[in-house]
Amino acid sequence: MSLYERFRRRDRRALARLITHIENRKNGYRRLLAAMATTPGHAHRIGITGPPGAGKSTLVDQIVAAYAEEGNEVGVIAIDPSSPFTGGALLGDRIRMSQLINRKNVFIRSMASRGKSGGLAAATRDTITAFAAFGMDLIIVETVGIGQIELDIIDVCDTVVVVLVPESGDIIQTMKAGLMEIADIFCVNKIDREGAERLIVILDHLIHERLAPDGRAFPVVGTSGLSGEGIETLIERIAEHRQYITETGKFAQRRRRQLRSEIMDNVKERIARHLERQVEISDELDRMVNELAEGMIDPYRAADRIYDQYFHGRLTSG
Amino acid sequence: MSLYERFRRRDRRALARLITHIENRKNGYRRLLAAMATTPGHAHRIGITGPPGAGKSTLVDQIVAAYAEEGNEVGVIAIDPSSPFTGGALLGDRIRMSQLINRKNVFIRSMASRGKSGGLAAATRDTITAFAAFGMDLIIVETVGIGQIELDIIDVCDTVVVVLVPESGDIIQTMKAGLMEIADIFCVNKIDREGAERLIVILDHLIHERLAPDGRAFPVVGTSGLSGEGIETLIERIAEHRQYITETGKFAQRRRRQLRSEIMDNVKERIARHLERQVEISDELDRMVNELAEGMIDPYRAADRIYDQYFHGRLTSG
Repeated sequence: MSLYERFRRRDRRALARLITHIENRKNGYRRLLAAMATTPGHAHRIGITGPPGAGKSTLVDQIVAAYAEEGNEVGVIAIDPSSPFTGGALLGDRIRMSQLINRKNVFIRSMASRGKSGGLAAATRDTITAFAAFGMDLIIVETVGIGQIELDIIDVCDTVVVVLVPESGDIIQTMKAGLMEIADIFCVNKIDREGAERLIVILDHLIHERLAPDGRAFPVVGTSGLSGEGIETLIERIAEHRQYITETGKFAQRRRRQLRSEIMDNVKERIARHLERQVEISDELDRMVNELAEGMIDPYRAADRIYDQYFHGRLTSG
Repeated sequence: MSLYERFRRRDRRALARLITHIENRKNGYRRLLAAMATTPGHAHRIGITGPPGAGKSTLVDQIVAAYAEEGNEVGVIAIDPSSPFTGGALLGDRIRMSQLINRKNVFIRSMASRGKSGGLAAATRDTITAFAAFGMDLIIVETVGIGQIELDIIDVCDTVVVVLVPESGDIIQTMKAGLMEIADIFCVNKIDREGAERLIVILDHLIHERLAPDGRAFPVVGTSGLSGEGIETLIERIAEHRQYITETGKFAQRRRRQLRSEIMDNVKERIARHLERQVEISDELDRMVNELAEGMIDPYRAADRIYDQYFHGRLTSG
């Protein structure tokens, strides 16, 4: 029986191996993805994001455990921060997830935030495709930071939960606008800490000051990842959000927008790859760098020269 | 007298207007940049980065004031965090810089982190080009975060100072590798706070655990942006770093690497622009999105179709 057949029969080890196969761009990965894409599944894709130290991991543990207990199949994608240069992930507290890993209906995949062929966004999207085709009920994408990694979480999720803690005051100040655009639901975690009530008031204020484009207010939920307080409410809000976007047609719209940007990213990546390959085998770029360093040319003219050499007259309107 | 002539005669208002002209991609901006690029100047480009709340702004104020007092001309580029969607900058404490603005030999330029035509990196690079051609002695680029915005500070600076505070423990854990690769100098700010000594010890430890590729250790400097303690030492270390990279040839290497990535970014941007334009006037992308949504095609195949339609057979090895 082929790996893919075993995958279709819901063999978790086959799932793991196929994801790795795709991630490493091994022979036939494209055929595999194509096959998986024909089974889009029904999974609700939930993004959990927020600043470091907000307790996202513990919260994800709680949410996943609750979903699993209700008999759901859950796929988790945990994106680790990593060096912008080495691509090495600092696994940190990934081990804590061992209790979840032992559950039969939870599947966890960690990934480093850089150094993936095709980039983090592609790796995340492909894993979501595999999870969805596998028949997961829920896919949770946990990412550190907002705008801290090269992935726009709303480009891959249906519902985005932004997790903050009473100490997040600074972040709210600097990221205010971004938070409002990204969050479908705000979660104030470590609700037992001083300042939690104040943060909820601030968020409520922000929400009313600047409603979502359609006038809907985002819910703010207080939780404690440690005690489990508020988790049930958070899960209810997530389900309500799914229902809301489905009924209003926003769900389909969002997915279409995501597919559009996925295709365009893929095309741009292909072109960039083509360009790097061409430039590598010529000495034109070195020549341009020299002229630029000597002030004989400006950077835009240098780019024009490269562009003209490889693309000019070769691009038409199709 | 033309604006550019006034710029050449070191008229600050001409400088301001030309930067705006270039930023807005107004008629003739390319010619302007080309002219400026022929005068690369001698400015030392210093990046100051670190997490929100590290006191970077106050520190920059102190450093700039010290440089200015010695008779240097200083250009400051302050990059504000902003919404990833609206492109609106939250100016926050930019006003505090008013005391600097009044100095004759300090020129400050704020910019939002998104929504620039050509991107933040291009806007920053162009402003650096203008500052350098204007004859600045020092150019300071202040950015929030590390990897939080779409600009790699080491792609535009000769010397990068990473500012941390005793509370930055979390960030050091998650960003360890990235910090080591990015920082030429570590600055522990708010040195009077509890935990500062411990942070210095940790950084010293990290530095010795993982030396720079050439075996040189990064200096760690303790400062207080408020009292001004340590500022003089920091400035000395910055000068030493410049001397070090100049003597070892790393300065020229670094600038060449920067020019290379600048050219390639420009070419990629041009191609992406061309692509978006072509795709907009056709309905091929919509068709692909539909097929993808229905599971009739996979995202890579969809990208291939777009790529083939616009680029296939039109790209050669030049």
